[in-house]
Amino acid sequence: MKLSEILKHIEGEILGDDIEILALNSLKNAKANELTYCDGEKNAKFIAQTKAGAIILNKKFAQNAPKNANLIICENPHLAFAILSKIFSKPLFNTESKPAIIAPTAKIMPNTHIGSNAIIGQNSLIMHGAFIGENVKIGKNCIIYPNVVIYNDTIIGDECIIHANAVIGSDGFGYAHTKLGEHVKIYHNGNVVLEDFVEIGACSTIDRGVFESTIIKRGTKIDNLVQIGHNSELGEGCIIVSQTGLAGSTKLGRNVVMGGQSGSAGHVKVGDFAQIAARGGVSKDLEGSKNYAGAYPIMELGEFFKFQAKIMRFFKKK
Amino acid sequence: MKLSEILKHIEGEILGDDIEILALNSLKNAKANELTYCDGEKNAKFIAQTKAGAIILNKKFAQNAPKNANLIICENPHLAFAILSKIFSKPLFNTESKPAIIAPTAKIMPNTHIGSNAIIGQNSLIMHGAFIGENVKIGKNCIIYPNVVIYNDTIIGDECIIHANAVIGSDGFGYAHTKLGEHVKIYHNGNVVLEDFVEIGACSTIDRGVFESTIIKRGTKIDNLVQIGHNSELGEGCIIVSQTGLAGSTKLGRNVVMGGQSGSAGHVKVGDFAQIAARGGVSKDLEGSKNYAGAYPIMELGEFFKFQAKIMRFFKKK
Amino acid sequence: MKLSEILKHIEGEILGDDIEILALNSLKNAKANELTYCDGEKNAKFIAQTKAGAIILNKKFAQNAPKNANLIICENPHLAFAILSKIFSKPLFNTESKPAIIAPTAKIMPNTHIGSNAIIGQNSLIMHGAFIGENVKIGKNCIIYPNVVIYNDTIIGDECIIHANAVIGSDGFGYAHTKLGEHVKIYHNGNVVLEDFVEIGACSTIDRGVFESTIIKRGTKIDNLVQIGHNSELGEGCIIVSQTGLAGSTKLGRNVVMGGQSGSAGHVKVGDFAQIAARGGVSKDLEGSKNYAGAYPIMELGEFFKFQAKIMRFFKKK
Repeated sequence: MKLSEILKHIEGEILGDDIEILALNSLKNAKANELTYCDGEKNAKFIAQTKAGAIILNKKFAQNAPKNANLIICENPHLAFAILSKIFSKPLFNTESKPAIIAPTAKIMPNTHIGSNAIIGQNSLIMHGAFIGENVKIGKNCIIYPNVVIYNDTIIGDECIIHANAVIGSDGFGYAHTKLGEHVKIYHNGNVVLEDFVEIGACSTIDRGVFESTIIKRGTKIDNLVQIGHNSELGEGCIIVSQTGLAGSTKLGRNVVMGGQSGSAGHVKVGDFAQIAARGGVSKDLEGSKNYAGAYPIMELGEFFKFQAKIMRFFKKK
Repeated sequence: MKLSEILKHIEGEILGDDIEILALNSLKNAKANELTYCDGEKNAKFIAQTKAGAIILNKKFAQNAPKNANLIICENPHLAFAILSKIFSKPLFNTESKPAIIAPTAKIMPNTHIGSNAIIGQNSLIMHGAFIGENVKIGKNCIIYPNVVIYNDTIIGDECIIHANAVIGSDGFGYAHTKLGEHVKIYHNGNVVLEDFVEIGACSTIDRGVFESTIIKRGTKIDNLVQIGHNSELGEGCIIVSQTGLAGSTKLGRNVVMGGQSGSAGHVKVGDFAQIAARGGVSKDLEGSKNYAGAYPIMELGEFFKFQAKIMRFFKKK
Repeated sequence: MKLSEILKHIEGEILGDDIEILALNSLKNAKANELTYCDGEKNAKFIAQTKAGAIILNKKFAQNAPKNANLIICENPHLAFAILSKIFSKPLFNTESKPAIIAPTAKIMPNTHIGSNAIIGQNSLIMHGAFIGENVKIGKNCIIYPNVVIYNDTIIGDECIIHANAVIGSDGFGYAHTKLGEHVKIYHNGNVVLEDFVEIGACSTIDRGVFESTIIKRGTKIDNLVQIGHNSELGEGCIIVSQTGLAGSTKLGRNVVMGGQSGSAGHVKVGDFAQIAARGGVSKDLEGSKNYAGAYPIMELGEFFKFQAKIMRFFKKK
């Protein structure tokens, strides 16, 4: 789609050539035939290095753009991007249906759905009612329990177990907002990648990335009713206890433990081997190899206990 | 069913005529052929205005009733109502099955269930394993992802998206209690109404109203693993982040934002454009156009930050 | 399997006879043809009384063992047990398929799965998409809503209602850990038992016990999106409000109320008729017939309110 056609869907002005665009992508990863956008100060620093064919941005950031870059100048680039994300979204169904490739030793129970172009590896078991979307790859020796739903494009390694009614690859919760307070859905063209030996609990939900992948690395174990937001990355061997919620773009190092009902704000990093106590709320980056607790603010565990004890002691006397 | 027959199921005494009753309803909405009840001081003020054909109440409220009202006097009207709610509950299956009306452009995948008398609008997609209950109406251009369960009588507008394994219209969590500590289920004859452009996340649950509807208004977006209690009402354009729980009869104005893992106690109101931070606990009515945080008690956001900082500073020194 | 064969899977040394082992079991319940283990100080006191045929333990506890007991001495008995739990795990499918026994008055909707050797009682209704595992017993007059998943060996009494997309009997979240930070799954051979008149909300998850049963006693009502950890025991008539999470081995007495989004740490006991406020965190044993609130620490409700009020008053002035 040419930039001039794109301007039929969003308000803006082209500075540069009316090039052909094949896809949307992030400032960091966009290629010469892709359109990207900058939605504010935070990302402005990435503009200069982008390899995107064209950039949607507010005029105040126009001078940051590489020389010769093609620009669409508009007031609300985030909203423009959301509108376009629908137009460039992948259809739910492949235009041309391709047969799934199912290993002869895989077992597919009745009442399941295996999407076009899916691959099911050796000895894997797909149980009653499960939905395996299009282009999904499932490795060897996996168990997909009944009524699990795996959205299109999800990649699952070997030896994974996904418990009943879990949902892998659902759309991330992202919207741009109009002046009238309407929310315009950001279509998510990324996916979810589960590496080998990952286990996901019953009724847990893992959202797909916007452009890239939400990644759960090798050997990470996730309990029931856990939410993993879009673009999160969980290192190897993490333990995520029930009812924990990770907001979008959370990065956990390796062997991080998140206690029950804990949570994270978006775009935070937790270092390797850190442990967050039950109900802990990770609102900032945390160093690895330490234990933490609490939420306003989160503290090292020993400090948290002392702090709570001080408060108790002080007010008991009052 | 006549009042005299009703007394075979509950203990009580009729004051007035032995009229025929067709249904149960609230004090506010009951009509001349309906039976209502008053379960305590809170609702006693509504007795005088009720148009119900008959009222179940404790004798201490008998003088509040309209002159000529037909009464069933009993000790525990709430329990009596619960017992009767089963008798007057709608059956899970229509006594006479009527074919669903499915628009020719709608797409119904295999392994789905479309209940008697359901209506599926143009271009709507019902994916693998979804259950569409009886009398459910789904508008145009909706996507019902795999294994979604929509209970009987739910009304869904146009352009709605419901993600995998969400449950719409399940029974509210309401019981009356006997002296022996048994819980008698209150059958919920209300339903759920989703207006246009509503999106519901994976594994979220929205309970039906007792008599009336649980309502999610136009353009409201709900993330994964969210609980919406019976008889709640969410205004237009609300944003409800993952793992939030709204207790029964919560009323949110328009464009209210509830952060991740936040919650509300029952019967509270939040004004238009209010924003509740992650983990916020709404235990009282809140004015609109303000930001709030915390739970014991919830405060305005700025005040909350100052308050937490004061506590930190004070006890750091100790 | 002989002890000598078991040593092909784990590292250790046999002290005693090379006896034949039929199953794994807990120190408390293991029989003469079963193997048990002691994973630390906490359980060491139970070693002397065990009737197990053999015990895996660290050499420092060897002197606690009954005279003539057969021992496998190893460095990490918990890890050894986890490795063996896979070998002794029950297969997902009975080696010999036995027809389910379905009462003539039971109603099984299409697209359901009824496993080998299951029993479905009179007038029970199994709705669209539900999965009933092998050896599951469901009593009379139950409603199993659409897409519910009931894992193998679950026992459900009469008059139970299980709402859509709930999962009963999923594996508990238990792992042993290697020195390299890998998590070795503990296979759960226990089950879930729901007694009569139990109701389970939509998208709630109840994990099976390791050896024994997770038990929900008569008349207990569980709301939506609740997590019940392995080996928990809920007394009669409990009320568990939405989004509550009980960690493993929680024991609730009768008529305990857990408010919304509350939780418990593992291995705690709550006495009969205790009530935990919304968000309460049960981190220690609690006496019955009292109300509690808060989490750091949990207190009696009146005390909690006073405490919060004191903090407010003190810092408002600052």
